[in-house]
Amino acid sequence: MELFYAHSVEGNICLLDADESAHCVKVLRHRAGDPVDIIDGLGTLYHCRLVLDSSKGAEAEILEAEDNWGSHPYRLTIGCCPTKNNDRFEWFVEKATELGVDRIVPLIGDHSERKVYKTDRAARIALSATKQSLKARIPEIAEPVTVKDFLAQTPDQVGGDAPVMPGPDRASLRLIAYCFEDETHPRRSIVEALTEFGGRDVTVLIGPEGDFSKEEADKALAAGYIPVHLGLSRLRTETAAVTAVEAVYLNFIC
Amino acid sequence: MELFYAHSVEGNICLLDADESAHCVKVLRHRAGDPVDIIDGLGTLYHCRLVLDSSKGAEAEILEAEDNWGSHPYRLTIGCCPTKNNDRFEWFVEKATELGVDRIVPLIGDHSERKVYKTDRAARIALSATKQSLKARIPEIAEPVTVKDFLAQTPDQVGGDAPVMPGPDRASLRLIAYCFEDETHPRRSIVEALTEFGGRDVTVLIGPEGDFSKEEADKALAAGYIPVHLGLSRLRTETAAVTAVEAVYLNFIC
Repeated sequence: MELFYAHSVEGNICLLDADESAHCVKVLRHRAGDPVDIIDGLGTLYHCRLVLDSSKGAEAEILEAEDNWGSHPYRLTIGCCPTKNNDRFEWFVEKATELGVDRIVPLIGDHSERKVYKTDRAARIALSATKQSLKARIPEIAEPVTVKDFLAQTPDQVGGDAPVMPGPDRASLRLIAYCFEDETHPRRSIVEALTEFGGRDVTVLIGPEGDFSKEEADKALAAGYIPVHLGLSRLRTETAAVTAVEAVYLNFIC
Repeated sequence: MELFYAHSVEGNICLLDADESAHCVKVLRHRAGDPVDIIDGLGTLYHCRLVLDSSKGAEAEILEAEDNWGSHPYRLTIGCCPTKNNDRFEWFVEKATELGVDRIVPLIGDHSERKVYKTDRAARIALSATKQSLKARIPEIAEPVTVKDFLAQTPDQVGGDAPVMPGPDRASLRLIAYCFEDETHPRRSIVEALTEFGGRDVTVLIGPEGDFSKEEADKALAAGYIPVHLGLSRLRTETAAVTAVEAVYLNFIC
């Protein structure tokens, strides 16, 4: 099944941008009248008929729509510090998209080697992985933000000051992969935390190669994040991030 | 912590090959008398003192040994058809090693696009990932074998003809990620199969981009393999293979 992405849907017409049009018309040689499947990137799959086979801006008429196509039964935000090697972070973006993630926030931590991150390549990878894995919603690749700003500026993400404990009455579960050396806050397993959790909204924070700073971890704790571990192995940043996605994915839909 | 690999241990002396010696002596500038940590690739970590700082063949005296260092509490064999794009399979080898795998068998399936696979690069990646993730045992990268030969020639791997059902009395769990279209053999979730399983020895077979042939799947079934699914998402071959490792890893040590 070949999917195309419509950057815009006007009435019952899906509009493809230059890249998608070239792929549809030049590479796959689709012509007006051909049936084509198009996603809007927001969760809907449209079964269409190509009406304008222009390789610069193809257009297709919507025959039928399927909402929440290829969706997953949870909402997952991963805040992760981009790795020094860009390929590793982009690989995480691809795998997380294939498995099922809603929002990826590149975090800049006190110990991050990479202090600047451009999201355009990751966004393209997320689009291509979304089509490849037959989903209709493209995960959001947020603009980079420092760990402290993420914790401070997004109260809806972190639940303000009230410590949030897991439980069936919780709407949202916030986890941080971090080990407090003083053991004042013993870590639980991410699997355990997910199993006890009754809700479907999960946020996981993954630090850089140099880990989060104690100050960042303390702020996360104050913001209601629960320290978790991802198992016994020492994992690279991008492997830890994928493991967090796998834990959520396997917990909810496997 | 920096680990070196000894290709051979003679008495109380660890011998490093040219690559490891160059890294130890030329790059990290270790000199005779320096303390160095060396793994034998078989599960033992040796705390040593460098006695010969040759960049062609360094030698270190063993002061103390730790068996089963960084080991995991399960035995996992992944039989996986190498992807058309080599990087993707090698990425799987790296991630599986970081998480914890014992044996990776490159399988050539009836529908494999890649019919030939050279293991040397994968073996180097497994060594480097073993050191990076602080383990002492390097997973075995087996020589490529066809799916049918793997099933036929390794009775110890596949339990002969007797169908093997999961349960606490089982010594070994054999799973194949495959969907029988006729639904005569409904698939169970890999998480479910692992949860019910009482043993620690697991083998999982992952097919090529074109999936296993019906004939291969039937032979696997006869050899005691249980059809499982890896969740709702459509995963690339290498993502499916990593997801299988993650499911085992998270089941046993998270």
